[in-house]
Amino acid sequence: MNLVTIAIILGLVAVVYGFVTSRQVLGATAGNEKMQEIAAAIQEGAQAYLGRQYRTIAIVGVVAAIIVGLAISPISAVGFVIGAVLSGAAGFIGMNISVRANVRTAAAAQTGLQQGLTLAFRAGAITGMLVAGLALLAISGFFYYLVGVAGYAPNDRVVVTALTALALGASLVSIFARLGGGIFTKAADVGADLVGKVEAGIPEDDPRNPAVIADNVGDNVGDCAGMAADLFETYVVTVGATMVLTALLLKGLGDKLMAMMSLPLLIGGVCIVTSIIGTYFVRLGGGKNIMGAMYKGFLVTAVLSVPAIWWAISYALGDMNAAIGDQAYSGRILFYCCFLGLVITGLIIWITEYYTGTNYRPVRSIAKSSETGHGTNVIQGLAISMESTALPTLVICAGIIIAFKLAGLMGIAYAATAMLALAGMVVALDAYGPVTDNAGGIAEMAGLDDSVREKTDALDAVGNTTKAVTKGYAIGSAGLAALVLFAAYTTDLREFFPDLQISFSLENPYVIVGLLLGALLPYLFGAMGMTAVGRAAGEVVKDVRDQFKNNPGIMTYASKPDYARTVDLVTKAAIREMILPSLLPVLAPIVVYFVITAVAGQAEGFAALGALLLGVIVGGLFVAISMTSGGGAWDNAKKYIEDGNHGGKGSDAHKAAVTGDTVGDPYKDTAGPAVNPMIKITNIVALLLLAALASHAAG
Amino acid sequence: MNLVTIAIILGLVAVVYGFVTSRQVLGATAGNEKMQEIAAAIQEGAQAYLGRQYRTIAIVGVVAAIIVGLAISPISAVGFVIGAVLSGAAGFIGMNISVRANVRTAAAAQTGLQQGLTLAFRAGAITGMLVAGLALLAISGFFYYLVGVAGYAPNDRVVVTALTALALGASLVSIFARLGGGIFTKAADVGADLVGKVEAGIPEDDPRNPAVIADNVGDNVGDCAGMAADLFETYVVTVGATMVLTALLLKGLGDKLMAMMSLPLLIGGVCIVTSIIGTYFVRLGGGKNIMGAMYKGFLVTAVLSVPAIWWAISYALGDMNAAIGDQAYSGRILFYCCFLGLVITGLIIWITEYYTGTNYRPVRSIAKSSETGHGTNVIQGLAISMESTALPTLVICAGIIIAFKLAGLMGIAYAATAMLALAGMVVALDAYGPVTDNAGGIAEMAGLDDSVREKTDALDAVGNTTKAVTKGYAIGSAGLAALVLFAAYTTDLREFFPDLQISFSLENPYVIVGLLLGALLPYLFGAMGMTAVGRAAGEVVKDVRDQFKNNPGIMTYASKPDYARTVDLVTKAAIREMILPSLLPVLAPIVVYFVITAVAGQAEGFAALGALLLGVIVGGLFVAISMTSGGGAWDNAKKYIEDGNHGGKGSDAHKAAVTGDTVGDPYKDTAGPAVNPMIKITNIVALLLLAALASHAAG
Repeated sequence: MNLVTIAIILGLVAVVYGFVTSRQVLGATAGNEKMQEIAAAIQEGAQAYLGRQYRTIAIVGVVAAIIVGLAISPISAVGFVIGAVLSGAAGFIGMNISVRANVRTAAAAQTGLQQGLTLAFRAGAITGMLVAGLALLAISGFFYYLVGVAGYAPNDRVVVTALTALALGASLVSIFARLGGGIFTKAADVGADLVGKVEAGIPEDDPRNPAVIADNVGDNVGDCAGMAADLFETYVVTVGATMVLTALLLKGLGDKLMAMMSLPLLIGGVCIVTSIIGTYFVRLGGGKNIMGAMYKGFLVTAVLSVPAIWWAISYALGDMNAAIGDQAYSGRILFYCCFLGLVITGLIIWITEYYTGTNYRPVRSIAKSSETGHGTNVIQGLAISMESTALPTLVICAGIIIAFKLAGLMGIAYAATAMLALAGMVVALDAYGPVTDNAGGIAEMAGLDDSVREKTDALDAVGNTTKAVTKGYAIGSAGLAALVLFAAYTTDLREFFPDLQISFSLENPYVIVGLLLGALLPYLFGAMGMTAVGRAAGEVVKDVRDQFKNNPGIMTYASKPDYARTVDLVTKAAIREMILPSLLPVLAPIVVYFVITAVAGQAEGFAALGALLLGVIVGGLFVAISMTSGGGAWDNAKKYIEDGNHGGKGSDAHKAAVTGDTVGDPYKDTAGPAVNPMIKITNIVALLLLAALASHAAG
Repeated sequence: MNLVTIAIILGLVAVVYGFVTSRQVLGATAGNEKMQEIAAAIQEGAQAYLGRQYRTIAIVGVVAAIIVGLAISPISAVGFVIGAVLSGAAGFIGMNISVRANVRTAAAAQTGLQQGLTLAFRAGAITGMLVAGLALLAISGFFYYLVGVAGYAPNDRVVVTALTALALGASLVSIFARLGGGIFTKAADVGADLVGKVEAGIPEDDPRNPAVIADNVGDNVGDCAGMAADLFETYVVTVGATMVLTALLLKGLGDKLMAMMSLPLLIGGVCIVTSIIGTYFVRLGGGKNIMGAMYKGFLVTAVLSVPAIWWAISYALGDMNAAIGDQAYSGRILFYCCFLGLVITGLIIWITEYYTGTNYRPVRSIAKSSETGHGTNVIQGLAISMESTALPTLVICAGIIIAFKLAGLMGIAYAATAMLALAGMVVALDAYGPVTDNAGGIAEMAGLDDSVREKTDALDAVGNTTKAVTKGYAIGSAGLAALVLFAAYTTDLREFFPDLQISFSLENPYVIVGLLLGALLPYLFGAMGMTAVGRAAGEVVKDVRDQFKNNPGIMTYASKPDYARTVDLVTKAAIREMILPSLLPVLAPIVVYFVITAVAGQAEGFAALGALLLGVIVGGLFVAISMTSGGGAWDNAKKYIEDGNHGGKGSDAHKAAVTGDTVGDPYKDTAGPAVNPMIKITNIVALLLLAALASHAAG
């Protein structure tokens, strides 16, 4: 039990770091009265939205918890609730820090770039450490209770199913938060731009635009809270799946079993420490290379994680060179798999930077194609978005082959676990983005000196790349995690239904049907997400037009627009629009199983369902990477032009680039990132469906 | 042998129909001198391009034929050449009719709408019947030679491999023609629009635009010749795959084997007759419903094909109710599968019409979203393009399940064969499009009365939908054909390498890697195709700008632009750009096999290669459908606005819709449709790789 205790302690360290750092952040000056007033409006809107979102999720969640409790077991329902509540908490706390750090970052940027960077990055680091810490606490705490208090064997079926239910809770909150937040942020953003920039001709973040507060609220509820829930889910599912796979595959381990099941938790724990150390290295050197400062922090974390993981494995297993049970691999081999996971993370970050950074061919080719108009900008952007899937796919395929050759499925699971162990640092880089984005908006609205806005703009510019990086990282790890989940599915299937002859061969047409239906899900889901943003943005446009018309004083600064009305409208629209697409991955596996079983019998039903799980990753990987990288590239192509290239701001090329940016918005911030929880939720629902069917068949 | 003889005779009937009808078309008046002059320029450009394209393909083809001859057998090389030459011939003759019918359609439209429709549709029907007829002649003639003259048993390995090589020849020409023609037509179209409409402010098809002739040439070499080669390939591969599967699976048939192998040819033959009859029913009724006239013709063909196919099967097998060999199905069951194929065709046409027609929600939602700008138009268009994959996927999945339950893999093969048997009629509907498109251009350039242009515009408007229909039909049938090809692959594999333990199970990580790499191919291929269009269009823009600058007389009609120079430039660009992406599907299976074999041994190499074949269809189906339907929807959303909705021509909504149309152009006419031959070529290369490896291992 002592390994789990260490993991719990290290998880608490992350929470303490969050608490201490948040006191530092909140202790900084919050600027003048006007700034505070604006920040308060953003805070209020974000809290109102998140409150409403969580109430809606709670209704779905209570229903789901009851179903889990009845269909499986009460303890699984408890796991489900823990996963859901802590996932929500990570997002909620992160968002609360973010909406307080934004105005303080704007104030700090009045002093200097380093001061602004430090404050914004610390705010991001709080969210990052809370995500990793709470996720680690959720699994290790629940595991401690199940094994240490309730006395189940670590690989007891109750433990396995309860851990899966915990993952479902996290995933369910995550898909709602990603999608709801994503729709909110992009509906407000697109809507504000369409009427503000295009029709009324006022600049971005102009206080006269009634949608400007909603836009800033969106950054917090989408890019911060939604992202945090997503990464919480990814962490819980990946680490949980590795534990479940250990329980299912390593039967003959005896007293080593507890150590092997706790090892993923310990790896997560030690990397929290290396992540915290890494945060202190995010500093500008002599120059002003903000991205370089970020990379410095990440690199320190990654490099320190290598010996830390070695220590964790050798501490848990004792002998690094002894075979684990009757397996062909040792602790040393698992360490190599973890190292592979760190390398994959580094490569994906590097590839994403290449496809979304302004210094390389892809973004520049989009910028150049903007010279010949809107159409060619979009064509080139789509081409880049499709192309950007190639290198990550090759990296993931190479990773699968190497990890599998090293230690079979367990190798893949450990590579994925090591990837996610860095989540604290990766989320820190990402959560920094919305803080600086908001800081710029507040500086603009409060009429601060232009030099302040310049500093916040510089801080914000790297945000596009770090945001894309997190998404590439999440979907890349999902590719590996999905294989682990599929392995859990097939192993469970053999255990629950030993008499069924199930063929997962590609020669089975029901497998083909499952693959096709699985690959369809991300397309349909993406279409729903994009349409939802379009529809909600349309409502924003109408509202803003209406305010301009009925309150002409807005344009002359004589009267203030009704910000709250727009926030309220976007809130309602986002909540309404998130329900249906979120239910798609929950219901699809159940429907496919029952329909195919009715048509061709249970064995084919399970075969088609299994194929669906892989189809959703085969299809989803490409949809997600192309959308998130493509969207980032479009955004930065616009920024590259605004930096004075191809005619600069206001040129025809810039107008075309704004179109591309608008198209990229729902791509990269709504539909694309939500594919990641979608893939996982499909897999977990299938696993729990198996458990429910088995207990039904047994009862 | 008499069944094959009947098929040959029916193939010749199609050629005779083509000959007779082409005399009718060419006998019609070709309009005034100016019209003839313009048409001559288009003719010249199209012939010059196609000549150059075929010369380039010939070089690749000769190399490929030599490789096939050396690696497999000389007779296979002969099959390869027959497939390649007749595929090229179908495109070449079709294009030659098309470039002569365009001006005659313009002239006929001076008399009336019905006259214009009759002439344009007859021209399309010539191409349609030649595609179906030559494809049927290619396979049945070669089969006749192999079995009747050279004396091989119908299921001899030599016959199987030679038929596969014939399919490779057709596919290789097809991918080059689809891609080269697609790049040509869209580079010219986009380039002409960008400088003409956007920069110079002159209307579409204005004779002052130096790219206008190239644009019209493009319709013929892309939408006519490229499409014809594509459907020729689809026909040959589908019918050939059904024959190959029969040879591989039905071992114990005895003297019934010859009848079973000839049956797909006979089904193709009788449907040529029903297609020819159908063409005579394409007439306007009392109203002016052109689409209705088209559907009438198609419906007559489809309905007549039901008894025709029944006759073909009962004639070939004698007893409809007797089991075929030791199989669980009879001739009656195969008839049901064919009927299913016809139903699938009808459903796909109906779904495509829904997603691309101006009367339904999808196109109207794109038109409406154009009101709020370029960005929202593109967002909604992308959402629709993703959504449009759902219903066809469900139809294909249902088709797979029903056909498989009826008669196993043979059921799927017969459903696909029946789909393709209607190719004559479907291609006729499609090839009609470029004729009317050109007719409108000629009417504009020759300064004919506005009423003529109105008629040609009305004729052209349905072209977008019929073009999308053919593509949906081709990719839908490819989904079924790919399963047949995969079955041939696995059967071959067991026969050639009986000692290898190969697992195609989804639990094999090399299968996952193969699926991911396969799904990557259409993305990479699509990215290359889109980039190629962007690059070539950029060259057109520069050329046109240069002509306007150095020859100011063009704008005042004082001097004529140098049309030939632009045609020549697009020709060179398209040929150059088509090479690399076309080689991707040829080389990918070979590289994947050898790399995985080197890493993990031959069994895993074959497993990964097999998974790649299915991955390319799982990924490609969605890329192809979303691109072709989405592109059609964008185009018709623009047309819907031009009809006076949402502000009509010249409004801001129209400008946004033009952007969407431009984006849709390479989607629907370059990258999307080329995915279909790409899928097939990957599969066929894998089959021939097997044959080559086997003969190498045996030698």
